[in-house]
Amino acid sequence: MSTAAATAFPKAHLIPTSGTYPHGFVAGAVASGIKKKPGVLDMTMVRSELPCTAAGVFTKNVFAAAPVQVDRDILTSRSGQGLTSVLVNAGCANACTGDQGLDDAWSTSRYIDSQLGVQPHAASGKPSSLVMSTGVIGQPLKMDKIRQGVDELTKTGTLTANHAGWSKASQGIMTTDTFPKLRSREFTSRSFGQKYRIAGWCKGAGMIHPNMATMLAAVFTDADVSAECLDKALRHAADRSFNAVSVDGDTSTNDSYVILANGASGVKVGGLGSDEFQEFTDNLTEFSADLAKLIVRDGEGATKFIEIIVENGRSFDDAKQIASTIATSPLVKTAIYGKDANWGRIVCAVGYSGIEVDPGKVNLRIESGDGKKQLHLFKNGAPFDVDEAKAAEILNEEDIVLRVDLGMGKETATMYTCDMTHEYISINADYRS
Amino acid sequence: MSTAAATAFPKAHLIPTSGTYPHGFVAGAVASGIKKKPGVLDMTMVRSELPCTAAGVFTKNVFAAAPVQVDRDILTSRSGQGLTSVLVNAGCANACTGDQGLDDAWSTSRYIDSQLGVQPHAASGKPSSLVMSTGVIGQPLKMDKIRQGVDELTKTGTLTANHAGWSKASQGIMTTDTFPKLRSREFTSRSFGQKYRIAGWCKGAGMIHPNMATMLAAVFTDADVSAECLDKALRHAADRSFNAVSVDGDTSTNDSYVILANGASGVKVGGLGSDEFQEFTDNLTEFSADLAKLIVRDGEGATKFIEIIVENGRSFDDAKQIASTIATSPLVKTAIYGKDANWGRIVCAVGYSGIEVDPGKVNLRIESGDGKKQLHLFKNGAPFDVDEAKAAEILNEEDIVLRVDLGMGKETATMYTCDMTHEYISINADYRS
Repeated sequence: MSTAAATAFPKAHLIPTSGTYPHGFVAGAVASGIKKKPGVLDMTMVRSELPCTAAGVFTKNVFAAAPVQVDRDILTSRSGQGLTSVLVNAGCANACTGDQGLDDAWSTSRYIDSQLGVQPHAASGKPSSLVMSTGVIGQPLKMDKIRQGVDELTKTGTLTANHAGWSKASQGIMTTDTFPKLRSREFTSRSFGQKYRIAGWCKGAGMIHPNMATMLAAVFTDADVSAECLDKALRHAADRSFNAVSVDGDTSTNDSYVILANGASGVKVGGLGSDEFQEFTDNLTEFSADLAKLIVRDGEGATKFIEIIVENGRSFDDAKQIASTIATSPLVKTAIYGKDANWGRIVCAVGYSGIEVDPGKVNLRIESGDGKKQLHLFKNGAPFDVDEAKAAEILNEEDIVLRVDLGMGKETATMYTCDMTHEYISINADYRS
Repeated sequence: MSTAAATAFPKAHLIPTSGTYPHGFVAGAVASGIKKKPGVLDMTMVRSELPCTAAGVFTKNVFAAAPVQVDRDILTSRSGQGLTSVLVNAGCANACTGDQGLDDAWSTSRYIDSQLGVQPHAASGKPSSLVMSTGVIGQPLKMDKIRQGVDELTKTGTLTANHAGWSKASQGIMTTDTFPKLRSREFTSRSFGQKYRIAGWCKGAGMIHPNMATMLAAVFTDADVSAECLDKALRHAADRSFNAVSVDGDTSTNDSYVILANGASGVKVGGLGSDEFQEFTDNLTEFSADLAKLIVRDGEGATKFIEIIVENGRSFDDAKQIASTIATSPLVKTAIYGKDANWGRIVCAVGYSGIEVDPGKVNLRIESGDGKKQLHLFKNGAPFDVDEAKAAEILNEEDIVLRVDLGMGKETATMYTCDMTHEYISINADYRS
């Protein structure tokens, strides 16, 4: 992204000004006019010059939007093979739009293929482009704008392989986001010493919660990974990244996280049991978590980044349920906004999580994000070192850790969330006006 | 309550200025100094001149406060027999206070008995007074203030049988409540034509959610009801009243709902299978719901009273889970604050409730509280009559009904909640300061 673009957004320090992008992909965005404001980027495309393997995880909401239904079908029907591109439109979610919505999503994907001269899948007849939508629910897609946008995006020269193209792509998907969310990284395979790259973007600022929220994310790699391995790695990564962030506990109709791998690096990631697969999964998980944390940094109206670590649970699921209960408590989130070391509300949330805990073994610490300042507030079921001055010092930081020790087992789960503020109410009371 | 007292609070129309109270009880409150502000009523007592049967339902939070543990023990050890009074202090919750907290709660109950000359229970040695606390978590009770308060409350003349006494009692339990919550009613038994009365008060404004929140409630009747019947009737009533209200989804350490029956009316309610028992249960349920709705009317910062009716679910539990998911969605609650007919957020909450629904059968209507204005927003899975002008008219009302028809079965559940506002954030970000 150019410096000019970066300074147009708040939190400029979170927006990259350069990157190392996976080979064989081109990216970009155009202003199609779906968003009312003229000239605003609202359609993004990333296209691969080689056919890709692909995988996706999607919302569990029973009102899954049309593009979610279409993408699931494409990935299944094609067994994750031969995918070519991802198209995103912002401004209209194409959700709760019935059969018309499904027709529109299918014809968008087919139209992209026809403009690019890609043939439908021989066995299933399904097209090769994934489609994603985000924005207002219940309104039909303006298909004339969509087609015009696709025309422009598929013209030679609109998409580029450089940082400027990826930067535009990360902007074309924004809705209530206050800054674009883009990351790229080069990895050196321990096994072969060869290099491959992962890049991706995501969007989301409110309604963010596991399983999942108005959250769109796509990552692209030039590693050579089988569709089966990609699916497995993506699910592992999603549980520890996009499914570990919560802004307000609501989950949406459109959430999608997809990955495309085109193999352009020549680095072949082995099968499910291999060391390279484990390494790739770890890298993808870390990369995904970095992207997901950007959503929390942009939580609607947020002033704090809160990491909730629940340690020594009997199971990962137990620990995660408790972390999630704390992360979605309005009382915890407003207390931290108010810089109030109100450990009672945190302990109370542990107590009503529905998970069996031994009150006498529960410990709670608050820490600064860098771990340099720590305060042990609650020890073995009773208040401990409630040093209000030190607590205030920690709660003055932007990054705060709440560390709960259950003393019941060995499993740990982490959730990322933000505080709940006056600005959150303003944004969400006024969204459609 | 005198007119002077009523006008000292907002929502004066919700505060009774007279009442018909159960015979054989006296009630009142004193300013003990537990609350910092001098002269503020903060200790309440209701005492019966005859021994009472009693029952209680309490928080499921694993960090149940000391008074909750003590009351459970008293009710069990005494088999709900021979209870004499209920004492409440506001300002300190006596929660997360370890063994000291338990000692303090027990000695408070014993001290009341000793001041009133009541002997401990012969079989168990347990005292006869229930104790409740509400306020800040993690601080010990100031026992000198508690004893002074009990001294004053047990002095002849402090408690009275008239409206002034009950009115004071309803004020002495308030914390973030903006108005006292008191109700009384006389019932005529269909079976015998005899009259009996129920009166009670509750407190709670935030952290209000099923199972249960910083919600204290006590009701008193001069009907003659066995402890077994009282327990059964109370549980039925609680599920349809205090367990059907939600302000912010948090549940607390201190929630308690108790009932004492002294039989002074001479109306004997028969056993579990009897018509009189059914009649008493229905009356208690309706009375409890009236009290519980006052808590929603006083939701922290609330400007709207929202009734969520989920109809035609496969089971009561399914319908209630969906109603509860809508009632705790910050996005729904902020949209209604913003008078925004954002049906997408409501439908979305139905979709992520975890309950299986058929999207194509879901209908959503919004209605004014009196049912006179109605708008069918979502019909069989798709947006329907989104008449924004009519929607605005309905959402301008203080009382709003969201009616969801699942089209799956015959069961209905209702939840009561309020909107989420800037004022909610202010109250909860600043609670301890």
